[in-house]
Amino acid sequence: MKFKYNLEKKEAHTKARLGSFIYNDKKYMTPMFMPVGTLATVKTLTPEELKEVNSGIILANTYHLWLRPGEDIVKEAGGLHKFMNYDGPILTDSGGFQVFSLANPRDITEEGVTFKSHLNGDKLMLTPEKSIEIQNKLDSDIAMSFDECPPASATYEYMEKSVKRTIRWAKRGKEAHKNEQQMLFGIVQGGAYKDLRKLSAEETVKLDFDGYSIGGVANDGESKEDMYHAIEYSIPYLPEDKIRYLMGVGEPIDLIEGVIRGIDIFDCVLPTRLARHGHAFTLKGKINIKNAKYKKDFTPVDDACDCYACKNYTKAYIRHLITANETLGARLLSIHNIRFLIRLMEDIREAIKEDRLLEFKEQFVKDYYGGINE
Amino acid sequence: MKFKYNLEKKEAHTKARLGSFIYNDKKYMTPMFMPVGTLATVKTLTPEELKEVNSGIILANTYHLWLRPGEDIVKEAGGLHKFMNYDGPILTDSGGFQVFSLANPRDITEEGVTFKSHLNGDKLMLTPEKSIEIQNKLDSDIAMSFDECPPASATYEYMEKSVKRTIRWAKRGKEAHKNEQQMLFGIVQGGAYKDLRKLSAEETVKLDFDGYSIGGVANDGESKEDMYHAIEYSIPYLPEDKIRYLMGVGEPIDLIEGVIRGIDIFDCVLPTRLARHGHAFTLKGKINIKNAKYKKDFTPVDDACDCYACKNYTKAYIRHLITANETLGARLLSIHNIRFLIRLMEDIREAIKEDRLLEFKEQFVKDYYGGINE
Repeated sequence: MKFKYNLEKKEAHTKARLGSFIYNDKKYMTPMFMPVGTLATVKTLTPEELKEVNSGIILANTYHLWLRPGEDIVKEAGGLHKFMNYDGPILTDSGGFQVFSLANPRDITEEGVTFKSHLNGDKLMLTPEKSIEIQNKLDSDIAMSFDECPPASATYEYMEKSVKRTIRWAKRGKEAHKNEQQMLFGIVQGGAYKDLRKLSAEETVKLDFDGYSIGGVANDGESKEDMYHAIEYSIPYLPEDKIRYLMGVGEPIDLIEGVIRGIDIFDCVLPTRLARHGHAFTLKGKINIKNAKYKKDFTPVDDACDCYACKNYTKAYIRHLITANETLGARLLSIHNIRFLIRLMEDIREAIKEDRLLEFKEQFVKDYYGGINE
Repeated sequence: MKFKYNLEKKEAHTKARLGSFIYNDKKYMTPMFMPVGTLATVKTLTPEELKEVNSGIILANTYHLWLRPGEDIVKEAGGLHKFMNYDGPILTDSGGFQVFSLANPRDITEEGVTFKSHLNGDKLMLTPEKSIEIQNKLDSDIAMSFDECPPASATYEYMEKSVKRTIRWAKRGKEAHKNEQQMLFGIVQGGAYKDLRKLSAEETVKLDFDGYSIGGVANDGESKEDMYHAIEYSIPYLPEDKIRYLMGVGEPIDLIEGVIRGIDIFDCVLPTRLARHGHAFTLKGKINIKNAKYKKDFTPVDDACDCYACKNYTKAYIRHLITANETLGARLLSIHNIRFLIRLMEDIREAIKEDRLLEFKEQFVKDYYGGINE
């Protein structure tokens, strides 16, 4: 269902914003990190576990759900919330990113993108209208416009052509949007080109979306500088009363830098992907639980953490599970890593309240990036 | 820690027994099905989830834990309960079954069994003393004697030689047993040979163990007839005041037939293994959730089930998870399948109380084996 973003406070020394919205009678605060549930499941976890780590919005993936199980089945189930048993807010991406990153070869025309399914090679076409139609049926709370995601290496000429097409696609998608209970966000593209970001932001805002996202920062080859520029070049043209979403970003420093530049929500597969490979965030840096030194380490992954994994299990046990490929290992680290990023956002919100976000960043960077890096 | 078995009631028309024991101030009832946590984790599940389905004793595996993470690490962690965060009763098997089923080639001598690790090919030797030493360190509540598990195809001559050696091994293991907080169970072998089962049972009972198990019924090639005979040939020689454990059995009909013949506890990987492959027990028979007919089936796996999976998810959603290889699918079906067998045991106990176990069996077999079989 739709909800309204309330800007509660601006931080004194940065562009950071504290915001909130009410959904199903519950108040959610931004800046917020959103765990990714690609196939209508945040990998290995239940909705109850997501709530226990204080998750808010979660993501699901239009491209993946279109292929499996198919949007009609989700619609028949009563929409994504009922299908996956999650009563918190759900955002679906447009499928654009997956079409450009997973499916090859592809053919981009004004109409849309033709490509082969990464599952079985079937020839498929995704258009702005089709993406919206699928998302309407999935019945997420927030749908995303269908956009092209060119690589960082794209020339100015290509990027300009692409940005203009993405604006035309955004308009077509908005016209095709039929679900009145669903918000629709526009996407700002333009790579690291200042004037293209401006053009993209201004033209997208003219279409009057329910929120705006900044894309093209986590495709392939973008540097951190590119990412920060992309935000800085876009934010000035976005309205203050709408949510700003940085897509596909979850590295702790990027969350902090994004907030500092005015971003409200983020999503990334990083916490769950790292977990499956045995990596865990800690305030003292990222550890690799498979390291031999944790064999007899009977302390929690992170002493300072309040998650289920840290309250009940030791590094030695989780290391054993991960090295033996036991699912519970990935579960425990997924809980921990998601909780870590959500707690980081909680700490960021406290710092915004007290106008000390830059000090917070300095201390965090010193402890985390100056610490363990396994 | 040790506990005492109390025989509460014998069923009027069969050899079935209702029993109980107190562990950590909690009363547990037998007959009982024990989920298997090979590597100190019941695959995909947490201890809390095991409690939620009313699990009692769970199993862990000596051979596997010896190899990974090693018994010394578990000991240093404070034993299996602390290591895996399970405060219910834990039974460890002897490693014998795995040595005979997983590790090839092997060389059996009076001293023990020499074999190659299934993980890295290292040459290893397991002896009765070594098995007990490992289990002492794992600090399970119930340790098992180290036994030979000959295949069903073994000749009478081989089986006789093997049974006698297993009895000598049982004696050596008992002498090596040093953990005063740990019970030690003896194992009756002898294949489908009546006089060898008698010999094995009588000689094992003479050694005065804390409980007795019947082995060699789930090795390789045993028929259901062989299994039932093995129980019938062994039970008359086992004391009434000790627990009787049928090893490696979890097919619903075998649980019922085992109870009818006087068995108190059972273990099997079946519910979790079936779950990972998308199979689910229901009162109307076993279903294969991957079947296309469940694509749009928005009802629970089993309407009659009270488990977390059946209360919150549909067949369509679980089918989607299983077909997309999403871990949550195996988790949900593991919860359901374990709950199914534990609930079957609850129903069996009620039937024993009311002396209607044979009627219960007849109805169950009609519904389950006369039902779906996917």
